[in-house]
Amino acid sequence: MKMIIHIFFTLSLVSSISFASVQDFCVADPKGPQSPSGYSCKNPDQVTENDFAFSGLAKAGNTSNIIKAAVTPAFAPTFPGINGLGVSLARLDLASGGVIPLHTHPGASEVLVVIQGTICAGFISSANKVYLKTLEKGDSMVFPQGLLHFQLNSGKGPALAFVAFGSSSPGLQILSFALFANDLPSELVEATTFLSDAEVKKLKGVLGGTN
Amino acid sequence: MKMIIHIFFTLSLVSSISFASVQDFCVADPKGPQSPSGYSCKNPDQVTENDFAFSGLAKAGNTSNIIKAAVTPAFAPTFPGINGLGVSLARLDLASGGVIPLHTHPGASEVLVVIQGTICAGFISSANKVYLKTLEKGDSMVFPQGLLHFQLNSGKGPALAFVAFGSSSPGLQILSFALFANDLPSELVEATTFLSDAEVKKLKGVLGGTN
Amino acid sequence: MKMIIHIFFTLSLVSSISFASVQDFCVADPKGPQSPSGYSCKNPDQVTENDFAFSGLAKAGNTSNIIKAAVTPAFAPTFPGINGLGVSLARLDLASGGVIPLHTHPGASEVLVVIQGTICAGFISSANKVYLKTLEKGDSMVFPQGLLHFQLNSGKGPALAFVAFGSSSPGLQILSFALFANDLPSELVEATTFLSDAEVKKLKGVLGGTN
Amino acid sequence: MKMIIHIFFTLSLVSSISFASVQDFCVADPKGPQSPSGYSCKNPDQVTENDFAFSGLAKAGNTSNIIKAAVTPAFAPTFPGINGLGVSLARLDLASGGVIPLHTHPGASEVLVVIQGTICAGFISSANKVYLKTLEKGDSMVFPQGLLHFQLNSGKGPALAFVAFGSSSPGLQILSFALFANDLPSELVEATTFLSDAEVKKLKGVLGGTN
Amino acid sequence: MKMIIHIFFTLSLVSSISFASVQDFCVADPKGPQSPSGYSCKNPDQVTENDFAFSGLAKAGNTSNIIKAAVTPAFAPTFPGINGLGVSLARLDLASGGVIPLHTHPGASEVLVVIQGTICAGFISSANKVYLKTLEKGDSMVFPQGLLHFQLNSGKGPALAFVAFGSSSPGLQILSFALFANDLPSELVEATTFLSDAEVKKLKGVLGGTN
Amino acid sequence: MKMIIHIFFTLSLVSSISFASVQDFCVADPKGPQSPSGYSCKNPDQVTENDFAFSGLAKAGNTSNIIKAAVTPAFAPTFPGINGLGVSLARLDLASGGVIPLHTHPGASEVLVVIQGTICAGFISSANKVYLKTLEKGDSMVFPQGLLHFQLNSGKGPALAFVAFGSSSPGLQILSFALFANDLPSELVEATTFLSDAEVKKLKGVLGGTN
Repeated sequence: MKMIIHIFFTLSLVSSISFASVQDFCVADPKGPQSPSGYSCKNPDQVTENDFAFSGLAKAGNTSNIIKAAVTPAFAPTFPGINGLGVSLARLDLASGGVIPLHTHPGASEVLVVIQGTICAGFISSANKVYLKTLEKGDSMVFPQGLLHFQLNSGKGPALAFVAFGSSSPGLQILSFALFANDLPSELVEATTFLSDAEVKKLKGVLGGTN
Repeated sequence: MKMIIHIFFTLSLVSSISFASVQDFCVADPKGPQSPSGYSCKNPDQVTENDFAFSGLAKAGNTSNIIKAAVTPAFAPTFPGINGLGVSLARLDLASGGVIPLHTHPGASEVLVVIQGTICAGFISSANKVYLKTLEKGDSMVFPQGLLHFQLNSGKGPALAFVAFGSSSPGLQILSFALFANDLPSELVEATTFLSDAEVKKLKGVLGGTN
Repeated sequence: MKMIIHIFFTLSLVSSISFASVQDFCVADPKGPQSPSGYSCKNPDQVTENDFAFSGLAKAGNTSNIIKAAVTPAFAPTFPGINGLGVSLARLDLASGGVIPLHTHPGASEVLVVIQGTICAGFISSANKVYLKTLEKGDSMVFPQGLLHFQLNSGKGPALAFVAFGSSSPGLQILSFALFANDLPSELVEATTFLSDAEVKKLKGVLGGTN
Repeated sequence: MKMIIHIFFTLSLVSSISFASVQDFCVADPKGPQSPSGYSCKNPDQVTENDFAFSGLAKAGNTSNIIKAAVTPAFAPTFPGINGLGVSLARLDLASGGVIPLHTHPGASEVLVVIQGTICAGFISSANKVYLKTLEKGDSMVFPQGLLHFQLNSGKGPALAFVAFGSSSPGLQILSFALFANDLPSELVEATTFLSDAEVKKLKGVLGGTN
Repeated sequence: MKMIIHIFFTLSLVSSISFASVQDFCVADPKGPQSPSGYSCKNPDQVTENDFAFSGLAKAGNTSNIIKAAVTPAFAPTFPGINGLGVSLARLDLASGGVIPLHTHPGASEVLVVIQGTICAGFISSANKVYLKTLEKGDSMVFPQGLLHFQLNSGKGPALAFVAFGSSSPGLQILSFALFANDLPSELVEATTFLSDAEVKKLKGVLGGTN
Repeated sequence: MKMIIHIFFTLSLVSSISFASVQDFCVADPKGPQSPSGYSCKNPDQVTENDFAFSGLAKAGNTSNIIKAAVTPAFAPTFPGINGLGVSLARLDLASGGVIPLHTHPGASEVLVVIQGTICAGFISSANKVYLKTLEKGDSMVFPQGLLHFQLNSGKGPALAFVAFGSSSPGLQILSFALFANDLPSELVEATTFLSDAEVKKLKGVLGGTN
């Protein structure tokens, strides 16, 4: 009898504290407002184990495209449990000859691990120095935040890698799409990159840009 | 006359700036959405001095329970003014023989000061090293973020301490409640702790766990 | 034909990723709830280039006031694109004899650059040491976060400076307005500053304070 | 025999990982260089439980001074284990009539809990609004980062409080010492505060200032 | 001739700026002092591409131990380029029946992706709620910072996973090693966990603890 | 006599506290080790007002170069007082026709204010959308962290702007220098940007690249 009362008090203690510490996690509620720190939090009572798991990285991305490669992200909101936790993942599939073109992640550093194949990867520092490595299965490499980097399948068959980021919202800016896949006027691209008008217009044509 | 106009301009200046800097604080509005950075902010016009004060730590917690101890938190939303300010408090009451069982705070380091009695406190590092101290009235001790620690009344009468955290939402995970006060299947508890089936089932019985 | 399909796939790739990385920026939506990290984010589809630009610093502030000076901030929400980006600007206009009185920014350090005139600026450290410089056109000076500092036109004509902060919401507390331009009881001002009753009441009169 | 080998492997596993994660804590080494994030870390092998405990708050501060009050901090380096952990403590002793004069902490918010006596405490926001409370034993109050605040013994006997900060290096700038206890020229104090020459010189005399 | 001069000026411009922005990265210098933010930085002139790559995850960890599992970290200092970049990796090898026992990472959230086999993983929240998933190849799961979690090979053959952390120094506290593999006195373990003396002594025997 | 003693006690109080809070600022000591949080701190006793002021922005940068522009930074170590304070400045000089080519700052957002002339500025988001504005004297614009952006003199005479960053070490990666002013093999540039071999080699020639 006494024990039952004790348990009752004990559990009350726990619950009263847990009410006060609702932010073990903040599962994304894509319908709520966003803030600079991420998505609004789903009501904790409606959070389930499924919010913390994601099966979207299980399937190879479609590499039938111009880069023979695909990036499949595991970011909020498709992976709601990761919101605000300061980490995220993505899957890189590179068909033979595939390349993840030069790009940056404005919001986080990246670390890559090769699961299959051979990948030549590199980044360029603010001092314009190039750091280049050929990575085999199991090798990893880190790309500091915001610096231009690329991954290229330098082996014979397809390559697979997973990459992790130190933010649940790292962003991704692919250089050639930023330059050539929008309406940034050609003359501005040329003036700010030193590329020739012919080159800019050719690549705008290939990548769907206008102006 | 001139002076009055000057004051008018002066005050206009101040107000125009203060409108722009609404985030001296962000008093919790428990009805608004939460974000990874905390509760939504109450309309500043409705904020009063009462939002920044809390009387809930004045009364001893009820120690008539299995641990002969109580933790009374001063966290948002019961202490709405503390939201987002990166600090919080709690009161520890330990009756004679009382113990705050091994626990962690996932979101902050903790510092404790003894107000009354004698407390034996300790934490265990990632390297599994134990740091143990007996603290008398006025002594303080720091427990680094996320590490297992405990506080135990090692004196004769009751003990009282206040603890502070470097977050307004430090969280609290009490080890034995995490293991034995929920529906985590006994076989998983056993496989992941090396505890015996008998021990796990006995403690699930005591602490209200199932499965 | 093949190329068109390729482009289609390429652009799909880009868009699918960009949906996942909505937080390049978080343009302030002043109608949404605020959080400790700032204003809610405007729907990215409604964001335009105008959200990232601000013309409010182009015009000199009105210096016809008691301090012969004006501070014009470029903070959210008047400059919505700056929300959450960890940086902001303000314009300081100091007429001849003008002064930005002793003040602090609770949320950020400040760096100033003189555009016109001569400014005597200084700050006081926690150790009560004074760091004082006379700055000419083009000179810059940094004021560490939260420390009392001032800027005073020590030249002959008007002075102009821009200041930047390492937060989009640095706050601004002007010392004499905090002391004398509100209803803080005179006896409390006196007890907590050692100022005389006569002095406090005189300045409350000048700056619009009561009590 | 097998078991012994198993234990050997197990412990190897643990050690190899713990070597890699040396930053559970960074106990201050006052002889090493400091960085913006705090003191250098002592060699982990030389860290003991004494680094994490501090007895300096056990004794009342000496209140035989002009403010009839004392602030005793528990910061690095006197409390080396707290370095870098984002939290700290201080003890406030206020004799009858004692006051902690208006001050700011540039680096952290503060939360106070009254242990003995009655304390009238308040802070002033960026909008120059005053938030004032009379706190009895057990009451707590939070003071947002960088804002001017004070604590005053408004009861009959002595008062005691502990305060916690969300930084291990919160800083402390006492307003009247910043104004009057250094060599900041009187004319600059006057120009930047609107105080009279007589008042400034009188208080410089009392508090030890020059110029 | 003119062009050569232009290039000279251009490159000067770049170098002068790059000298000023040395902190694209801070490759760990294990011989220098550590700070709360990580290892000291190696002289940038001595940094090579090898500092940013790590082959230590290529080989399976030795699972011939009590847990039939191994954790191989890619943290500084073995992976010096990752220092201070806010992200890290580890490799989990689980032989048939292997388990990564209940543990926490005090300094970061974790996200896992299964490369081979079937893993049953789970974590327990501050509210003592259990979130449990069975993950197949390619599935991922996130474990919020500081919360107890485990991974268990629930398939037939060996399992392999990579995990990423949102810190380059996440820490790792394995619960049963923290309880039973050191000199924490048995009576303190018992008092702070409710485990029986017999159970504690048995596990201290198995895991190498004393006292 | 009594007063003198009071002053003595008062000043003791202040000094004892100020010893404990040495990190109002951390003036760069370029000879000490660096950490991920910045340069080591100079001995506070050797810090002077000159550490917090910088005259290097007073003079126009040399625009006799290929871009007809110059960027003059006010970063540590040339501006030692700014180390660790989370803010910095730079001066942009653009001769007629001058351009700051497409670039990113990996470590901070930027806000610009035009002092003289007319500047066409723009940035490209992760979603490849272009945000473009023509800015006149006094206009300001913000460029979110890590995104490609440029500034171009679109007026008749020279243009001058100051830019501020939310970090004392924002970094600067100029796109065309990163691509063409180093030894990154032409074939890798081509494979990762879609640029033609002829274009890459031409620009490597102009900008001093090899390979």
